[in-house]
Amino acid sequence: MNRHKEACDFTIFGVLGDLSRRKLIPALYQLDRARLLDDKTRIIGVARHELSQDAFIARMQGSLETFVGEPLDSEVVNRLLGRMQYVLINLDRPEEYRRLDKVVDQEQRILINYFSVSPFLYGNICTGLDHAGLITPTTRVVLEKPIGRDLATSRAINDAVAKVFTEEQVYRIDHYLGKETVMNLLALRFANSIFTTNWDHNTIDHVQITVAEQVGIEGRWGYFDKAGQLRDMVQNHLMQILTLVAMEPPVDLNGDSLRNEKLKVLKALRPITRENVEDKVVRGQYGPGFIKGKPVPGYLEEKGGNPHSTTETFVAIRVDIDNWRWADVPFYLRTGKAMATKRSEVVINFKRLPHNIFSDSYRKLPPNKLIIRLQPDEGVEIEMLNKVPGIGEGIELQRTMLDLSFSEAFSGERITDAYERLLLEIMRGNQALFIHRDEVERSWSWIDSIQDAWAQCNEPPKPYPAGSWGPVASVALLARDGREWEE
Amino acid sequence: MNRHKEACDFTIFGVLGDLSRRKLIPALYQLDRARLLDDKTRIIGVARHELSQDAFIARMQGSLETFVGEPLDSEVVNRLLGRMQYVLINLDRPEEYRRLDKVVDQEQRILINYFSVSPFLYGNICTGLDHAGLITPTTRVVLEKPIGRDLATSRAINDAVAKVFTEEQVYRIDHYLGKETVMNLLALRFANSIFTTNWDHNTIDHVQITVAEQVGIEGRWGYFDKAGQLRDMVQNHLMQILTLVAMEPPVDLNGDSLRNEKLKVLKALRPITRENVEDKVVRGQYGPGFIKGKPVPGYLEEKGGNPHSTTETFVAIRVDIDNWRWADVPFYLRTGKAMATKRSEVVINFKRLPHNIFSDSYRKLPPNKLIIRLQPDEGVEIEMLNKVPGIGEGIELQRTMLDLSFSEAFSGERITDAYERLLLEIMRGNQALFIHRDEVERSWSWIDSIQDAWAQCNEPPKPYPAGSWGPVASVALLARDGREWEE
Repeated sequence: MNRHKEACDFTIFGVLGDLSRRKLIPALYQLDRARLLDDKTRIIGVARHELSQDAFIARMQGSLETFVGEPLDSEVVNRLLGRMQYVLINLDRPEEYRRLDKVVDQEQRILINYFSVSPFLYGNICTGLDHAGLITPTTRVVLEKPIGRDLATSRAINDAVAKVFTEEQVYRIDHYLGKETVMNLLALRFANSIFTTNWDHNTIDHVQITVAEQVGIEGRWGYFDKAGQLRDMVQNHLMQILTLVAMEPPVDLNGDSLRNEKLKVLKALRPITRENVEDKVVRGQYGPGFIKGKPVPGYLEEKGGNPHSTTETFVAIRVDIDNWRWADVPFYLRTGKAMATKRSEVVINFKRLPHNIFSDSYRKLPPNKLIIRLQPDEGVEIEMLNKVPGIGEGIELQRTMLDLSFSEAFSGERITDAYERLLLEIMRGNQALFIHRDEVERSWSWIDSIQDAWAQCNEPPKPYPAGSWGPVASVALLARDGREWEE
Repeated sequence: MNRHKEACDFTIFGVLGDLSRRKLIPALYQLDRARLLDDKTRIIGVARHELSQDAFIARMQGSLETFVGEPLDSEVVNRLLGRMQYVLINLDRPEEYRRLDKVVDQEQRILINYFSVSPFLYGNICTGLDHAGLITPTTRVVLEKPIGRDLATSRAINDAVAKVFTEEQVYRIDHYLGKETVMNLLALRFANSIFTTNWDHNTIDHVQITVAEQVGIEGRWGYFDKAGQLRDMVQNHLMQILTLVAMEPPVDLNGDSLRNEKLKVLKALRPITRENVEDKVVRGQYGPGFIKGKPVPGYLEEKGGNPHSTTETFVAIRVDIDNWRWADVPFYLRTGKAMATKRSEVVINFKRLPHNIFSDSYRKLPPNKLIIRLQPDEGVEIEMLNKVPGIGEGIELQRTMLDLSFSEAFSGERITDAYERLLLEIMRGNQALFIHRDEVERSWSWIDSIQDAWAQCNEPPKPYPAGSWGPVASVALLARDGREWEE
């Protein structure tokens, strides 16, 4: 059996929703185009709307036309649409799940259930699938984030899923794990001795992880305001990047090996509580400002907004990892909306050299940096010092970049979208790029502690102008430690 | 007093010779153009030919026109020529040195004596200068390589010079020390923590130093055949590069600090003798071959050649440095004429990682390399592994280069010629880029041991075709250690 092309009944619950139309259907198109779907693979769309098969196919074709972002290959489109079948199910009604029985064939194909709906429906779907007798040991289930809004709700969801699925059947998605440069973190760290031997408190001063969005709330006010940036971005994306940067070398790349090492990092995070939250965390909310020279409203003035909301749209955190490798090496995280630019990156700041023989040129030698750009322009840079060519007295130094741009180095190769990779890995049955329940819960319990501390402080988030790098307190967070954010 | 522009009587002995015309006079032009010569600085040309001042000036102007390699600035030309004065001296006749007395003014200017003549005349010039009473404590003397052809002759020359000059007055030139990228070795090593912490037997597997010339003997057969590649290139250039790569961190950039550290490396070189010469050294001589597609004669067929010469035009050496830092880390040197391409570079080969979690992609992970290109295109590269973008099963790796090209990074800035820098440093009185007598003699005694071993073996050099990378034995030298030359 060719694991690349295992046949499956790929069932999308919530097939008419935003994620499905924007990401999943286009990703399936790309996989089909690359001949990575088995000929027998079927795509089953589930939603609660009355819709004929023809009307469904037309909607799917529309999604491809709108969201694939390149000229469509009509042969591939036809092949893909030919795999598709619509099934109407009201997710609250267990009896309706029997309708799936007519279209899935678990003797020929593996049943994959992609839950592209509100997490509070996950339990219902599980019950329905179970009720219809559709769950076998080979059945898989894919959960989209957010899985809950805190430890308790996350547990409830995971428990509901666990009633009918074992952990080995569950694929929890954080699409950051499907990004090329995030995966390249593993290659950088564990295939390159210059970094492997330099990756601890002996040589690294601190680490910065920035995920800055330039957009504001984009009409998602209602959803976002209940979550806030800490739950929406830190609990998943930033924590995942942090664990990949910080984890011990795994013994291999298998799912269990990787996930165990990531979990160990989460277990080592020093808790942030009422006692230290003000020293360790900066919470911000954007006010009116300018982005790309155009005036934009503040968070409270956004359409549909509650002018008294204290939800944060920015958060900066000093994270301490209490283990052997990272003693005294803080990880500074920051993420926000309506920031100066869109930028995601990891910056490894190496230690300053203990002695400076170039003091004529630099009174304080700037330390080396390894910059891993996740977006927009994926790549790797090393900031180092070189001699400035020229004849000045002494040796004059200048910061220069050794750099590797992915789009240049691998030009001509299309950068795979995160969802394409993740869907393929699910079909392959490889859990390495998915999140274990233990990770989700460890992460929530650490986040909850911060949320609790905020609730106790009862202080509103600090304002910052849209189009800036967040509240000045974010600068002060590092300045207190004698450090500064990468600009 | 501005040390940048200390006034001097810059006296070139052998002013009509090749080095003077090709390198020194054009370098002085560039310094004058950059306003780095004091207004009172004079240039005194000494040779044994009957020549009027006007004819001398015309010859110098001719040198500028031929060798500056860019459109001349006539104002600078006139200023420079205005500083020049010709003095006829037969260097063997001490009494003739009095003629200098009329043109030099050691109260106003520092007397710098540049010996651009055969080293066997150095003693004579010293005697002559002394005889004429021209040597004061501020007088400086510049010695061009080669200083002798072995330890004994080198000592004789250094002794003759030492009779009238202290070591602090002597500037021994190896023009490699004036090259930008050679000086950048200091910046790379001592201003960048990612290298400083990675620079020893714990992390480095071995080092390669290549200085490959594409040209053959270029009409210098008579001179070269008496020396050979070991004396002509290894004793000076390659040994200097080796010491800069291998030395301990100096406490500062002063001449003494640097030269002491370099000397310590030379003292730690494991001797090569009759017992181990065949395991450690490959000696080659080029035969007929093709360079850039054109047939070229072998060394023995070159114009003026002795068809029975056993002089080597290629040498490859495994050098072991017996100290704490470099235990079990061989330095492989190779240099040759009539090679496949012109290339000078240092390649730091880091150790292979002890464990490979990417064995699906690479059965043996290639180690990281730091490549320091000295010529033709000066720059720094790090060869490392990154994930190949794409959706293959597992993480596929590819070797990629993080690179910094000096000519790109510092485009618009003219790369200073080595001689410009060195002449300026002499005028500044900074000995850091010049070689101490102890270095020369340590180096010769190590080289002599190889020459002696060769003489005892009585084996001719191994032939290699012009346009190749040397005899196959050079490949075998590394292959025996499980390594290979950078291609």
